[in-house]
Amino acid sequence: MTEKGSGAPVARTVLQQCLQARLQVKPADEHSEAEFVQIERGMVIYICFFKGANDDILPKMVSSLLNLRLCEADSGKLVSVLDLPGSVLIVPQATLGGKAKGRGMQYHNNISKEDGLRLYDIFVSLCEKELKASAGSEADVTVEHGTYGNRQVLKIDTNGPYTHLMEF
Amino acid sequence: MTEKGSGAPVARTVLQQCLQARLQVKPADEHSEAEFVQIERGMVIYICFFKGANDDILPKMVSSLLNLRLCEADSGKLVSVLDLPGSVLIVPQATLGGKAKGRGMQYHNNISKEDGLRLYDIFVSLCEKELKASAGSEADVTVEHGTYGNRQVLKIDTNGPYTHLMEF
Repeated sequence: MTEKGSGAPVARTVLQQCLQARLQVKPADEHSEAEFVQIERGMVIYICFFKGANDDILPKMVSSLLNLRLCEADSGKLVSVLDLPGSVLIVPQATLGGKAKGRGMQYHNNISKEDGLRLYDIFVSLCEKELKASAGSEADVTVEHGTYGNRQVLKIDTNGPYTHLMEF
Repeated sequence: MTEKGSGAPVARTVLQQCLQARLQVKPADEHSEAEFVQIERGMVIYICFFKGANDDILPKMVSSLLNLRLCEADSGKLVSVLDLPGSVLIVPQATLGGKAKGRGMQYHNNISKEDGLRLYDIFVSLCEKELKASAGSEADVTVEHGTYGNRQVLKIDTNGPYTHLMEF
């Protein structure tokens, strides 16, 4: 699965296709209700960075994920989310870095929160840029994303998630 | 991530926590409506077997997956799905064996459909047996599962999926 020729992966993604997905980006508090973002048809990207990840891998990751033929067009043919065209929901998911030790999970290989947030922000920006460049501004597709470090309250509705794992 | 000491993994699972999940087990046809199974709070297990997988790994896989502390109890503490107690929805997901080649995905390492179905059936039975043994027959938890080889029309509602990858 590792797309690098050698060495341990520095990022792990899980990809699911959706008809609709909704994610909480701000929990409710005493002053306001919870806030959500939502996409219609497209792809959910769960993402986790490991120690050793740096900015250099991001353009290739984004290009690869958005151009892989993982989405089912109306014709039944598999096309990329850019070609669909579909929307993208990016979900930071540090749990993806978990490794079982006994009955518990450890996350020792995860990147620091500070570095992870920085890479996550750039990853989101690159996805937005690439989707915009591909779809044009008039297309009804967007990139939405969760708040790094928060609980990712997620609801997803699929016609088959076609779950894939991609590591970089 | 690989739980075996050495060698390539023979099974890949992705685990998500849910408040509710619903899966189609029979598509609609001209005679009848689509049929679904549904669980409430618990865990969704997406599963894919690779070439080389055999019956021997199944008891350990099931025991590991059902006993890992991946679920959030009401107290906020992490407990296993058996301890929650929660339900389990098993989703066959051959796409998890995909490997990118150019812009397409290849599944050359996946087990044959016949062998995969056999292992899947045993996996489901073992999960049912272990949940029943742990929860007792009066507990309101179940194991539900998708139809191997079908499209997995899935809807999932979470309070945070806490997506984990476990390979065996």
